[in-house]
Amino acid sequence: MSCDVIGIGNAIVDVLAQAEDSFLDEHGLTKGAMALINPVQADTLYQQMGAGVEVSGGSVANSCAGLASLGAKAAYIGKVSADQLGEVFAHDIRAAGVDFQTTPGPASGPATARCLILVTPDAQRTLNTYLGACVELGPDDIDSKAITDAQVTYLEGYLWDPPLAKEAMLKAANIAAKAGRKVALSLSDAFCVDRHRAEFVSLVDDHVDILFANETEILSLCEVESFDEAAKAIQGRVDVAVLTRSEKGSVVVTKDVAMAVPAAPVSKLVDTTGAGDLFAAGFLYGYTQSLGMKRSAEIGAIAAAEIISHFGARPEAKLSSLI
Amino acid sequence: MSCDVIGIGNAIVDVLAQAEDSFLDEHGLTKGAMALINPVQADTLYQQMGAGVEVSGGSVANSCAGLASLGAKAAYIGKVSADQLGEVFAHDIRAAGVDFQTTPGPASGPATARCLILVTPDAQRTLNTYLGACVELGPDDIDSKAITDAQVTYLEGYLWDPPLAKEAMLKAANIAAKAGRKVALSLSDAFCVDRHRAEFVSLVDDHVDILFANETEILSLCEVESFDEAAKAIQGRVDVAVLTRSEKGSVVVTKDVAMAVPAAPVSKLVDTTGAGDLFAAGFLYGYTQSLGMKRSAEIGAIAAAEIISHFGARPEAKLSSLI
Repeated sequence: MSCDVIGIGNAIVDVLAQAEDSFLDEHGLTKGAMALINPVQADTLYQQMGAGVEVSGGSVANSCAGLASLGAKAAYIGKVSADQLGEVFAHDIRAAGVDFQTTPGPASGPATARCLILVTPDAQRTLNTYLGACVELGPDDIDSKAITDAQVTYLEGYLWDPPLAKEAMLKAANIAAKAGRKVALSLSDAFCVDRHRAEFVSLVDDHVDILFANETEILSLCEVESFDEAAKAIQGRVDVAVLTRSEKGSVVVTKDVAMAVPAAPVSKLVDTTGAGDLFAAGFLYGYTQSLGMKRSAEIGAIAAAEIISHFGARPEAKLSSLI
Repeated sequence: MSCDVIGIGNAIVDVLAQAEDSFLDEHGLTKGAMALINPVQADTLYQQMGAGVEVSGGSVANSCAGLASLGAKAAYIGKVSADQLGEVFAHDIRAAGVDFQTTPGPASGPATARCLILVTPDAQRTLNTYLGACVELGPDDIDSKAITDAQVTYLEGYLWDPPLAKEAMLKAANIAAKAGRKVALSLSDAFCVDRHRAEFVSLVDDHVDILFANETEILSLCEVESFDEAAKAIQGRVDVAVLTRSEKGSVVVTKDVAMAVPAAPVSKLVDTTGAGDLFAAGFLYGYTQSLGMKRSAEIGAIAAAEIISHFGARPEAKLSSLI
């Protein structure tokens, strides 16, 4: 097998800035959520937000960087533009040790996607994404051999927003299934689940082996009121559902058991951006190395704890040295 | 007076990455120094260095951001290109509260300057600068009224590298002198002083009222072997020389006295990028608010301590709340 995990996602450069809660209120932003914005909204919000730090992001791309930092072999498929931020994204993911071959879109097309991230004093992050070149990711960008050769194909729910990317996801999921590989999915965001619930339900039931979701996302998918109901509702529909609950740790739900695993200690909570992405990275690392469900969730918790102790969603420490 | 300090410098976006000492050795880089690199060298080094974080930089631009964060009125003159990184630079310095009006160079010309910064485990930073659009800063970019209206015009030694910028500096220094304003200069880098020593000496003796230098820079300017000799050699040649010595604090040299001021405590040393820039910001804040030499140097030390406790050379904390 040439690689442990191949990820497919929206290739995004994050622009992180500190903001007060009042800024979110004034701009009608929902704390903790991801909102899609058009280029005009992106320009307006950017002008009004504070000085930023640019760091490569993108949910599954962050997970792939985390997997490589843990010592796994990871590859990534995602669309940037042939512009400066596209070069930044491509450099960073390759420098992290991830194989990244997707052809960039033309510089004359939409710019590389940006996510304007406002980090409030409680370390919560609020995402505002201009999808840019991501809308050009399509089935032609899916390398069948790379999918066939990967133990796990990992998809992000956010890919449901750009229409062509949805086709790309389904193509990849079908190739993986045919080759007897596993398909993993992150639900990404409760509002994203709301926008596409029926399709998400079909995807999960028909294609997904490993499902990642946080509490609000799994409640939204299953349309239930409590975490316990959601854990019951998802049981048996996928091989394993990994449900994350921030400081309450995670619950790993398989056909037979629901196992709670505590969160890892965090020295200083700075910015929760990427917590879910790095949890998934840690879990998939353990999964592909056959370390067992419990240890996989523990590694997820350790990777998540590293990422929330600093600004940005790519690991600063070599994660393999932390586990 | 419409502003406390107007700064003129190379407008640069920093690309910060962690690196081992062996990486510096392999690439023949001099730790702690600033090296100028051409676009080809920049591409090669960028490809080989690790995943980065992009943060607006530029020595005097960092100082201006620090001044604004301290509550001073600051303006900045520097040249970016009309490209994505130029937009990032312009956004960040304006969002920091600094007045920035310089017309960007055309997108068809050289790209916005980048400084590839390698931060070694000892938190030392090694700078590799591609000047890009900075070479297009010239006398026409100097706004005479803005210089006349500012209490202090602050220049960076790095401006000696792009030839047109040197003319711009001299134009600004002459306007400031004619208006009875003060001229401040940072020597920037010992190798930069080496490259242009004779011209630096003339500039200091003919135009500079407030001089900032670290230990190696002042030794290079004065061509002496010890710090004490350098402090004596510079005494009386400028109104005040502010000599910084990292963890040993600073020495403020005026015509009559040489006063040592201790460094401020640092909780965690992460990245020394911007230490000198923020020290200058703190000192110039105190100077323009007439707080006296000792208090000005103390504020410089506090601002420098904040900047070296995190990645990047722009303050994360509101500096006015720290003093």
